[in-house]
Amino acid sequence: MSTTERKLAAVVEGILDSYAEQGNINHLDGSNLPSRAEIDQLLADLLAVVFPGFLGRDRVDELSSRYFVGERCARSLRTLEHVIGRALSTPCMRPPGDEENGERRVREAHDHALALLSGIPRIRELLATDVRAALEGDPAACNAPEVITSYPGVTAIAVHRIAHLLYTRGVPLIPRMMTELVHGRTGIDIHPGARIGSGFFIDHGTGVVIGETTQIGERVKLYQGVTLGALSVEVSEASRQQKRHPTLEDNVTVYAGATILGGDTIIGAGSVIGGNVWLTHSVPPGTTVMLDKPSLRFVSKERSA
Amino acid sequence: MSTTERKLAAVVEGILDSYAEQGNINHLDGSNLPSRAEIDQLLADLLAVVFPGFLGRDRVDELSSRYFVGERCARSLRTLEHVIGRALSTPCMRPPGDEENGERRVREAHDHALALLSGIPRIRELLATDVRAALEGDPAACNAPEVITSYPGVTAIAVHRIAHLLYTRGVPLIPRMMTELVHGRTGIDIHPGARIGSGFFIDHGTGVVIGETTQIGERVKLYQGVTLGALSVEVSEASRQQKRHPTLEDNVTVYAGATILGGDTIIGAGSVIGGNVWLTHSVPPGTTVMLDKPSLRFVSKERSA
Amino acid sequence: MSTTERKLAAVVEGILDSYAEQGNINHLDGSNLPSRAEIDQLLADLLAVVFPGFLGRDRVDELSSRYFVGERCARSLRTLEHVIGRALSTPCMRPPGDEENGERRVREAHDHALALLSGIPRIRELLATDVRAALEGDPAACNAPEVITSYPGVTAIAVHRIAHLLYTRGVPLIPRMMTELVHGRTGIDIHPGARIGSGFFIDHGTGVVIGETTQIGERVKLYQGVTLGALSVEVSEASRQQKRHPTLEDNVTVYAGATILGGDTIIGAGSVIGGNVWLTHSVPPGTTVMLDKPSLRFVSKERSA
Repeated sequence: MSTTERKLAAVVEGILDSYAEQGNINHLDGSNLPSRAEIDQLLADLLAVVFPGFLGRDRVDELSSRYFVGERCARSLRTLEHVIGRALSTPCMRPPGDEENGERRVREAHDHALALLSGIPRIRELLATDVRAALEGDPAACNAPEVITSYPGVTAIAVHRIAHLLYTRGVPLIPRMMTELVHGRTGIDIHPGARIGSGFFIDHGTGVVIGETTQIGERVKLYQGVTLGALSVEVSEASRQQKRHPTLEDNVTVYAGATILGGDTIIGAGSVIGGNVWLTHSVPPGTTVMLDKPSLRFVSKERSA
Repeated sequence: MSTTERKLAAVVEGILDSYAEQGNINHLDGSNLPSRAEIDQLLADLLAVVFPGFLGRDRVDELSSRYFVGERCARSLRTLEHVIGRALSTPCMRPPGDEENGERRVREAHDHALALLSGIPRIRELLATDVRAALEGDPAACNAPEVITSYPGVTAIAVHRIAHLLYTRGVPLIPRMMTELVHGRTGIDIHPGARIGSGFFIDHGTGVVIGETTQIGERVKLYQGVTLGALSVEVSEASRQQKRHPTLEDNVTVYAGATILGGDTIIGAGSVIGGNVWLTHSVPPGTTVMLDKPSLRFVSKERSA
Repeated sequence: MSTTERKLAAVVEGILDSYAEQGNINHLDGSNLPSRAEIDQLLADLLAVVFPGFLGRDRVDELSSRYFVGERCARSLRTLEHVIGRALSTPCMRPPGDEENGERRVREAHDHALALLSGIPRIRELLATDVRAALEGDPAACNAPEVITSYPGVTAIAVHRIAHLLYTRGVPLIPRMMTELVHGRTGIDIHPGARIGSGFFIDHGTGVVIGETTQIGERVKLYQGVTLGALSVEVSEASRQQKRHPTLEDNVTVYAGATILGGDTIIGAGSVIGGNVWLTHSVPPGTTVMLDKPSLRFVSKERSA
């Protein structure tokens, strides 16, 4: 054994000892969790079916579309069964005494997977309204191809609508991995639990945070840096169940950097929340909220010199 | 046919029906759009030529540089012709009656592609000033290699200068796909239409938004979360043509989180805009704008208990 | 030679001329710098060892873990030696007269590489506290697998703890490339120089900036958009050495969008800094700082019409 080999062996033993000591950050039962790479490929397939011909390198036309869709759906079904099955078997999700019930998990995973694929037409209905909202909401937008290929807000809502379907069926882990993947890519952090109506548009989007129990009506528009968050963050079983995030009724617009907090906060239909506004209570329909003339100090170079 | 096969077949038919119904989010004419992966590879090649030896795994020295550059330029030319050609053929870009004019599109795509490659020396001149600005503007910056490999602001401006050249030539879609790719990677969202002078530096950068008709002079410095945006966002043909975003003259510095809005807003040369300032009107050269002493409330634990 | 060939040749010569002219953005000595792709692979291997079974596609169990760890450590050792060696040889890092001392660099790179691998157990101890902090700090968090696979704040602190170890040993370039890679992925920008205690949690995280000389105690919690930055940014040798960024003592919480600036600013233990607060001076332990009732204007549609 060379010196380097011996040193390396000592390093390895040290790490294995640490696995024995810090149990909460190991996952050594041989059933490794779904990987980012698997979720990434899965989302690429699902989005290619959702927006055919816009993403990916594959040509699709009327003739090939049945096979294109079939191939991707078949592959997605298997991947979904696989990753959902593994997610269902992570300890905390499993009801006590359920350790052995692998067969039921397989069936459940199959049902969830099929339900997601069957939900694609409804998801597409909603996304068609979202794409229209982007085209109507941004003077710089040219056409659907530009919006679908290049608008992070459109990617984020597409992935959210997929993840939300799994979330409402109680699938653990996978919905969150999906939305986190697109958060990493777009800077838009929508919890899969949020309920979002049709015609939704986020412009630019970096820094947007939408909490788990948020409710958003139809034709709502958000800009970059908007937070729809919780007021209190004490963690308890009660707080996990509670509505902690705000409600935005139909046709609300929230400008860049605004923060709206609290589960009882309802922004009435048609309201406009100005940039950087910090709001922790409800406003009636049709309200415009602005920062009062911000108090700025202006110093010209001559005077300050 | 197994049960799963039958179910899957039904899923596929449902999706195909939805393609017939939601026409605006399909692109089924067999001429699929440029993919993110193609644009990604293209940018990697172009950036490797722009910053030789800094990015990518390939060794470059004096001897090999001609072949290194030649190989990447040849490949980029072909890719550019291909993706620009397809972008030019997306319906809305095409003047009416132009459906058949594939030959002209091929020639146009070639001209745009060659123009971009010919523009690289000028782009490098500008980027050399941008790199110097980063070195001079950040006390934590050590040397050019660190700045070029690790500063998101440098990557963002490099891609912007490439995309902007295509934008000014009227190439659709591709410039926006390029800047959106780098937006996803850096959190810096610069519309390819923005006109940006030499010696430009963005520090940290997450959340920066620079609108389509922004004009930025020389030696301008921005920090994270700065928005150079539009005041009104009514979409009309008129608004698409209008200057909607501000002008920053030479030597302006804008600190983190500041928002400057409006097409008539001109920030005079040498001005300093403080953090979180919200500004919708012009200021003369040499002005410092700060938030007036922010009104904070301090509660010590003893008093609040 | 075809026309296109001739044109392309002219383009290539133009670019080579520009290499001769803009020397500061070339790196043509044949020792190309570490690439993003190498650092990316390296981090994937290191994180797979740090959080075994949670990331990546490889199954790990009690039986295979020694080989799993050994294989990844061996590979990481070689990659680390390689990239650190090249980083050590970038001109500005090299003390004058050291051009030829390649042998010492190889030895140094080996020592740094081994030190990082030997540091993994200690890094895991800290990360175990960070994962617990995430679970305790977010009502939406379900279990360790969710937190490790899907929380950008956990990824960011994991990479920071790795990069910080190399930073404290004086390794150039690599630590910054590591943290910038994760900045691009999470929107969380932690300079590798920052000193961060155990039990650290960042929720959501997009837009967080933590400067080089920041000091953070134990059990500190930050939300999205928090800046721990410098007041002055004049660049000089003196400023590079100075403490330019704030200190947060134990058990401090900083809510979304708050900005804390300055090397002399100390946030006393147990303090809570409210959302969007802008703070440039110290506060004693146990202080709550809030924006004073923000001055908002409310206009109902009826009155404004």
